[in-house]
Amino acid sequence: MEQETAKTAGLIIIGNEILSGKVRDSNSFYLASELRSLGVELARISVIPDDAELIGKEVSLFSRTYDYVFTSGGIGPTHDDITMEGIARGFSIRTKRHPVLAERFRKYYGERTNAAVMKMSEIPEGAELVDSGTSGFPVVSFRNVFVLPGIPRYFREKFSAIRERFRSSAFYLRRIFLNANESDIAEILNAVVAENAEVAFGSYPELDSAEYRIIVTAESRSRNLLDESVHSLLARLPENTLVRLE
Amino acid sequence: MEQETAKTAGLIIIGNEILSGKVRDSNSFYLASELRSLGVELARISVIPDDAELIGKEVSLFSRTYDYVFTSGGIGPTHDDITMEGIARGFSIRTKRHPVLAERFRKYYGERTNAAVMKMSEIPEGAELVDSGTSGFPVVSFRNVFVLPGIPRYFREKFSAIRERFRSSAFYLRRIFLNANESDIAEILNAVVAENAEVAFGSYPELDSAEYRIIVTAESRSRNLLDESVHSLLARLPENTLVRLE
Repeated sequence: MEQETAKTAGLIIIGNEILSGKVRDSNSFYLASELRSLGVELARISVIPDDAELIGKEVSLFSRTYDYVFTSGGIGPTHDDITMEGIARGFSIRTKRHPVLAERFRKYYGERTNAAVMKMSEIPEGAELVDSGTSGFPVVSFRNVFVLPGIPRYFREKFSAIRERFRSSAFYLRRIFLNANESDIAEILNAVVAENAEVAFGSYPELDSAEYRIIVTAESRSRNLLDESVHSLLARLPENTLVRLE
Repeated sequence: MEQETAKTAGLIIIGNEILSGKVRDSNSFYLASELRSLGVELARISVIPDDAELIGKEVSLFSRTYDYVFTSGGIGPTHDDITMEGIARGFSIRTKRHPVLAERFRKYYGERTNAAVMKMSEIPEGAELVDSGTSGFPVVSFRNVFVLPGIPRYFREKFSAIRERFRSSAFYLRRIFLNANESDIAEILNAVVAENAEVAFGSYPELDSAEYRIIVTAESRSRNLLDESVHSLLARLPENTLVRLE
């Protein structure tokens, strides 16, 4: 059994457009899957409005609580892009024009450079540029906080470019597809859960499949303990309940 | 201008399956849209793990902060269904078998009734049943907290059944489709934003449309102020920028 403690992460989605139902967030699901595949435990997601005070409080709290913090959104040139100001406020520092960023923006926008564009080069004092090498603009990080754009395509590009630095030890996962009612197997499952503290179980009814009615997931950092617990569960289930095991 | 203060809401999504990327949450987007159409301001979404202590803290904090709180998930019969226990813990009370719920479960499950099923009738002491009339099981509420199931189909059924009680005054929304770069119109937009405090603007670059490159949204509880601010913006935009106005 590995004794290594999992690295944890928190995700802060910044955007009135998500809270008001105008835009459907897809960054949460993407990052949750990516972090899982990297062995990082996503411990909390917050969706909060474009409000510098709230952003600051949330980022500061997350930064103290989790190993890594990711923010999504609020880094463009318009009035509602206040993530950098919010982060600075959360750590009681100022934002400052970063000369390398400013130079990149000037080059990219050329004659179209204006005050709104240059505002994007103002980042919390002491923030670093994590240069991804894959696109024109680096990811800005401040302490353990990584600031990502809200637009899904850019969010993915930026995270892909820096993802390897977060790789940790793996989780092993089995998915058990059952043709049973959750209420009928709940007591068996609860007993197996109680006996296998190092394995995390989940039980998810599926209404739209003709083939199975529940997916039970079992997950652990120990492949042996995982396999033992799954065998123990299968041995106790009623006949003809198992549809398949992945 | 209406002076009525908007009712606010918070949503707590409870589920390890969301945080670990196994299941994609669709309840947030549904509820955000629904609440908006009812005139309720969704102020925050939290996604947290199946942990009674965390659930309790979050529900109690949300209950004090927002007019309405909705929870999603964790009310089935298995070991990871601990929302009711969490809520009780958050308010320092106990869970107790509710006789009406217990009777409904017994009727519904008949001979298949077992301890895991009956656990679902244990709800925080003092909680109420909001009878939707549309399906077998009522929504449980405790103070301003409404407890909804995580399975999307049931989440929608239950919310639909109780939605009218949350109706408040409307928001008016205009969507302005522009063929422009966000950085080019940012200064104009920022000026209009500064002059129209009662109107909330958003600016969302769209990468996948051949027709437009930004959607600017403007929203207010006052239709007059909304129209004035939109006209003021349109008058200042460069020629041929407007694609359409909805």
